[in-house]
Amino acid sequence: MAFADPSSGTNTGSLPANPCNHRPGKVILVGAGPGDPDLLTVRAVRLISDADVVVYDRLIHPGVLALANPSAEKIYMGKPQGHHARQEEIHVLLVEKARQGKTVVRLKGGDPFLFGRGGEEVEYLAEHGIPFEVVPGVSSCLSAPLSAGIAVTHRESSSSVVIVTGHSADGHEDRVDWEAVARIGTSVFLMGVHNVETIAHKLIAAGRSPATPAAMIQMAYCDGERVVTGTLESIAAEVRRANIEPPATLVVGEVVRLRERLKQLVVLHAMQKEVEV
Amino acid sequence: MAFADPSSGTNTGSLPANPCNHRPGKVILVGAGPGDPDLLTVRAVRLISDADVVVYDRLIHPGVLALANPSAEKIYMGKPQGHHARQEEIHVLLVEKARQGKTVVRLKGGDPFLFGRGGEEVEYLAEHGIPFEVVPGVSSCLSAPLSAGIAVTHRESSSSVVIVTGHSADGHEDRVDWEAVARIGTSVFLMGVHNVETIAHKLIAAGRSPATPAAMIQMAYCDGERVVTGTLESIAAEVRRANIEPPATLVVGEVVRLRERLKQLVVLHAMQKEVEV
Repeated sequence: MAFADPSSGTNTGSLPANPCNHRPGKVILVGAGPGDPDLLTVRAVRLISDADVVVYDRLIHPGVLALANPSAEKIYMGKPQGHHARQEEIHVLLVEKARQGKTVVRLKGGDPFLFGRGGEEVEYLAEHGIPFEVVPGVSSCLSAPLSAGIAVTHRESSSSVVIVTGHSADGHEDRVDWEAVARIGTSVFLMGVHNVETIAHKLIAAGRSPATPAAMIQMAYCDGERVVTGTLESIAAEVRRANIEPPATLVVGEVVRLRERLKQLVVLHAMQKEVEV
Repeated sequence: MAFADPSSGTNTGSLPANPCNHRPGKVILVGAGPGDPDLLTVRAVRLISDADVVVYDRLIHPGVLALANPSAEKIYMGKPQGHHARQEEIHVLLVEKARQGKTVVRLKGGDPFLFGRGGEEVEYLAEHGIPFEVVPGVSSCLSAPLSAGIAVTHRESSSSVVIVTGHSADGHEDRVDWEAVARIGTSVFLMGVHNVETIAHKLIAAGRSPATPAAMIQMAYCDGERVVTGTLESIAAEVRRANIEPPATLVVGEVVRLRERLKQLVVLHAMQKEVEV
């Protein structure tokens, strides 16, 4: 989406060269994908390289930041877990830098418009008359399961998938309709490590079978990727036993079985090859 | 995900050079994103350029295919709407080409593991001992709403999003729990043009308010992008009036209001600027 130049009527995302000083700069929210710089979009790479200022969060991979021009200003605005006060500071910073005529890339892990408050950021920019653009990214809601051999939908076992933030299970923030979530074939919880017991408990209480397969994927597409599997009943214990740490993605549903099936088949064929040799 | 070389234990996705003839090739399922080649991942571009064979579907943008080596074999395997018989042919083709020692890129619109039967394809490959890998892509479930100025989640109005294929509303394929879907803050229907009346009707019958905002986005990130908005009650008529055609993505939920808010703000600021000048 580009509301940078309402008169042009296009959203091709082409950027002007350095804006003149009497014109405002612009802010581009860019999805940084799941981590690995190879999973940035082509457009994201170009925008990061061309930025005057890069504003980034806690989960941005160093290899992504390394793409920025060495002369670009890189500003870390990560928030400690559960701490939201900094959001207003980020808004003010983006407006300030754009008003200095800078091209500001606001890097957000995954996709900028799935959780992560991208919508609020563009609303604030629009309120202040700052031209902006939003560039989608690969979201870990799909890529984390994929990295573990799990397709979130399957013709036979699930025709829909619900995506929830794990923070939603926090007592004071719980606005999730757990009964509804429990009835959707596949559910994916981003940032679900700290609340995995609560999530599993609420899904079971809402009617989901305790035997439903579940998987937790730690840091898909980063060093330190690990996967643990179990059932809705056992997954919290497995996650603790394996010391899985954030960021990690929880997948619940029959689709998790694909991973086990693929692993068995690959091992089977590897053994057959050894016999042949 | 890479099960190409089970002994390596990595999924860095690095590819061998041309495999020797006595070894099988490999098949890489690659997410082609929403259309625009600029929204391919860096890894996807490299894999497409290096492929010996590219197998692609109906919705792959010509600019994406143009990245392939001129000497690569490009095979169209698109299926007419609602016609699934060709899936088995695709499976057989992928195995055949890989057994010829070829590096085969199987391009799938959006993300390969969200609908589109990517899970079935890798299962078949694994059953036949073919090394494979899957590379995630930008899915239109997020990027189509984003292109229209809609963040699918919002801190105040929606903490979860459910993704459904529009085909699910077909009479003989309806396995969707409409009551559950109606209770999730935001719902996104891929390929929803033909069934927009049915989808709206089922959501209302399942308890969603007829006044819920809705938007249909045609061909996000392709030439011919168009957006129509309305309510759950009016959206089907709006879609028909505007002659919206597939591929298009339907979004239902309060989050659609962000688009209207952003548009108003941009117009307001454009007017203020004119006054200042």
